Amino acid sequence: MAAADAEGGEEATADDEAEDVSNAEADAVGSLTVVIRAEVLQQVIDQLLTVVDEAIFRIGHDGLSVAAVDPANVAMVDLEVEPGAFESVGDGMFPIGINIQRLDDYIDGASGGDPVTLQYVAENRSILVEHTNVEVEMAGIDPDYMRGEPDVPEIDHSAEFEADAKVLRDAVENAQLVSDHVSLEADDDDGALVVNGEGDTDNIETVIEGDDLLGANFSKGVKSMFSLAYLVGGSTGGSKYKGILKPLGSGTELSGKIDDEMPIFLDYDFADGFGHVRMMLAPRIQND
Amino acid sequence: MAAADAEGGEEATADDEAEDVSNAEADAVGSLTVVIRAEVLQQVIDQLLTVVDEAIFRIGHDGLSVAAVDPANVAMVDLEVEPGAFESVGDGMFPIGINIQRLDDYIDGASGGDPVTLQYVAENRSILVEHTNVEVEMAGIDPDYMRGEPDVPEIDHSAEFEADAKVLRDAVENAQLVSDHVSLEADDDDGALVVNGEGDTDNIETVIEGDDLLGANFSKGVKSMFSLAYLVGGSTGGSKYKGILKPLGSGTELSGKIDDEMPIFLDYDFADGFGHVRMMLAPRIQND
Amino acid sequence: MAAADAEGGEEATADDEAEDVSNAEADAVGSLTVVIRAEVLQQVIDQLLTVVDEAIFRIGHDGLSVAAVDPANVAMVDLEVEPGAFESVGDGMFPIGINIQRLDDYIDGASGGDPVTLQYVAENRSILVEHTNVEVEMAGIDPDYMRGEPDVPEIDHSAEFEADAKVLRDAVENAQLVSDHVSLEADDDDGALVVNGEGDTDNIETVIEGDDLLGANFSKGVKSMFSLAYLVGGSTGGSKYKGILKPLGSGTELSGKIDDEMPIFLDYDFADGFGHVRMMLAPRIQND
Repeated sequence: MAAADAEGGEEATADDEAEDVSNAEADAVGSLTVVIRAEVLQQVIDQLLTVVDEAIFRIGHDGLSVAAVDPANVAMVDLEVEPGAFESVGDGMFPIGINIQRLDDYIDGASGGDPVTLQYVAENRSILVEHTNVEVEMAGIDPDYMRGEPDVPEIDHSAEFEADAKVLRDAVENAQLVSDHVSLEADDDDGALVVNGEGDTDNIETVIEGDDLLGANFSKGVKSMFSLAYLVGGSTGGSKYKGILKPLGSGTELSGKIDDEMPIFLDYDFADGFGHVRMMLAPRIQND
Repeated sequence: MAAADAEGGEEATADDEAEDVSNAEADAVGSLTVVIRAEVLQQVIDQLLTVVDEAIFRIGHDGLSVAAVDPANVAMVDLEVEPGAFESVGDGMFPIGINIQRLDDYIDGASGGDPVTLQYVAENRSILVEHTNVEVEMAGIDPDYMRGEPDVPEIDHSAEFEADAKVLRDAVENAQLVSDHVSLEADDDDGALVVNGEGDTDNIETVIEGDDLLGANFSKGVKSMFSLAYLVGGSTGGSKYKGILKPLGSGTELSGKIDDEMPIFLDYDFADGFGHVRMMLAPRIQND
Repeated sequence: MAAADAEGGEEATADDEAEDVSNAEADAVGSLTVVIRAEVLQQVIDQLLTVVDEAIFRIGHDGLSVAAVDPANVAMVDLEVEPGAFESVGDGMFPIGINIQRLDDYIDGASGGDPVTLQYVAENRSILVEHTNVEVEMAGIDPDYMRGEPDVPEIDHSAEFEADAKVLRDAVENAQLVSDHVSLEADDDDGALVVNGEGDTDNIETVIEGDDLLGANFSKGVKSMFSLAYLVGGSTGGSKYKGILKPLGSGTELSGKIDDEMPIFLDYDFADGFGHVRMMLAPRIQND
C-alpha cells in the first residue's frame, strides 16, 4: 500500500520515531487528566479494533487523535475527537501506547453519558481509568517500542458518494456469499454505486442508487476491487479483525471516495460532530 | 424405505431420468420468469433444507413443485405451491437443479412481501434471482446428473390426528432428553396421541389430548417408532439436517397420519393455502 | 477447606453414611408425593448446578433440604425450602440422589406457577416427575453410593454486608479481566466493601459503598482472597461449574459474611421467603 505506507514500518527504531511521539513533551507533563463520555470512548475503541490491537493515543489539550495501520499495511484508520467532545481535557498532551482490547474490557461497566476519566501517570507510564465505582490502573506501552504512526495519504479521487453505513455494508456482505473480494464501481451513466461479487459459478450484484445513494459526484466511471476480510471480516475465519464496516450501523452516514485501482476512503462523524474518522483500504490488484 | 423409495436412486443414469426431468420441454422454453413473495420462497427453502441440500425445482405455469428424499431414504418432502401464490408465473415450465443453501443466502436481503424474481436462462442453465437492489446470477444444476425425484408412496393409515406444530415438536423434543428415537402412539381408548421416549434409565412421556389434540380419527390403536435426528435434528451433532419439524412454529396446524410400523405423514398448508407440504418419515424398526 | 469439609469425603463407604441418609426411613415410606411450583424448583436446580451435578435431595414433610460440596471441597451450598413453598408435601420424607442436570432438562417445559409433582417410588428407587402434559420416570441414585452430605461449618465472622447480587457479581467479574482471583475487603474506615483484582500489569478495583452497600457491620477491617472460577465461572474454560454468583440477578439481596482468610458466606432468600440458601467458599491462600 504505497500510498498509505507506515512511516518507518516495523523496522522503525526508537531513534527514528523520537520526534513523532513527542517523548520530551510527555515526560514534561507528569500527570494529565481528561474526562470523556463512555459512549464516545466506546466508539473510538470499536473503530480502532477493526484494524489494530494496540495504538498510540495522543490525548490532551487538542482532544484525542489516533492513526493506525494494520500489520499487513492494507487498512488504515485516522481518527480525531475534538476537545468539544470531552468533559475536560487538561493542559498538556501525552502520547501513550494503549492495548485497546483491554481498555474496551475496562470500560465495559460504563455506558451512555457516564464520564470516564483517563489519567496519565508519567512516572510509571500507566493510565488510571475511572468510571462509576471502578478504578483501573492500566500499564501503558512505550511508544518508542511500538510501530510508528502511519502517514495518512492524500489522494484526489475521481468519484465521491454518500450512503448509509448499513446499506453499504449489506451490499458488501452480499458479495461475501460468492467471493472473498468485492468490486465497487461508480457508474457515471446511471448515477449508481455498483457493488459486485464474482464467484466461480455465481455472481451477485447490489446496486445502490435512487434514495439509497444519499449523494454522488462522479467525474468519471471508476472501479476498484477490495478484500472482503478487511471490510466485513473474514468469511472463513482466520482473519483476526472484524472488518472496518462492522461497527457501523444504520444511521451512520458514510462519505466515500473511490478511483480506478486506488485506495478507498470512508469518512464519518460521531460524538455530535466532534469526532471524525477516516478509514482507508488499499485496493486488491485485479489479476483477471 | 421401500414404501417411499427414490426412482432409480443414486445409480440413476441420465438416460433413465430423461423423461422425468422433461429436458425437451425445458430447452424449448429458453427463458422463463416467475415472481414470488420472499416469505413464501423462504418457507419452501426452510422445509426443503431439512431433508436435502439440492433438489430439482419445477417452476412455471403450474407454480412450483419439488419432491426430494434424503440420502439415506428415510425422510421425504413433497411440496407444491399453486400459481395463486405467485405474483406472476409465465407460460412455460422448467425443471432445474438448485443448490438450496445458496438460494437461501441469496434471498437473505428480501423479506415479507418483497417480490423475488426467478428467471430461468436455458442458454447457460442458470437462474437469475432479483429482489430489492440485488441481482444474482446463480448456476443451475443439470437434473440429468442429479438423483431422480422419488415416487411419493400411497398409504392408507389407520390413525389420523391434528395438532399445532409446536405442541408436537415439544413432545418429540422431550423424548430427545433420554433417547435417540421416539414412539408415536394413537391411543384409541383415551383419544390421545402419546409421544414416548425410552432411555436406558429414564422414560419421558408426553400426552397430547384435550384442547391440544385439534382432531383425531383413530380407527384402532397404532404405534410407530422414529429416529429423532430426522424429526428434530441430531441430539449429539453429526446429523447434517436439522429435522423436518424444526422450521415449524406455533400456529402451523399439522395433519398427521400414522399406523403400526409404517411411515408417518405430516401435512400442512402455507402461503394462504396455496402452498402444500407433505413430509414423510420411514419408521425405525423396533428391536426390543 | 478444613472448616467446611465433607463428612467422609470421596472415600465414604456405604456403612459410614448409613445414618446420614436415613435409609430405614426412606424404605418405610414406599411412595411419597410433593408438589412444587416450577419457578421454585428451577431456582433450586440453578443454584445447586453451580456446585455439583448430583446431590442428595431430602424431600417430604419438612419441605426440601440439600447440602452439597463441590468435588474439590472449595464451594458448598446449603439450601432449604420450607413446606410453605410447596403446594403439597405429603406425610413422609425421602432422601434420594438426583442427577440435577437431568431434572433441569425434565422440567424445561414447565414455567412460572406450573405445578411440578415429584413422586418417590421406593420400590425401584425412582422419581416420577409430572407437569403440564409430561410424565417422566427418572432413576434415582442410591444415597449410600454417593458422596456424603457435608457438615456445614459454623464461623463467627468479623464483617457482614448486604448488597444486590448483580452489584457484587459485576464487581467480581471486573477482577476477572486481569486475574483469576479476587480479594474482598471490608474497609472499616470508609465503610466500603472493596473488591480488587490484581493482575501482572493491571489492577482493577471496584468499591461498593453508599447506596450500593445496602448494609454493613464491620467490627474491624478484614480481607480474604477467592478463586474467581468458583464465584463467576472459569475465565479460560476448563472449570465445569459456572460460579455460585452466576444464577443470581438484580433484585436478589445478598447477605455476606467475611473475615481474614476465612470462608465467605453468602445468604439469600427466595420463594417468597420460604427458600433459604447459604453459599460458602473457602479462601484462596495468599502467597504474595
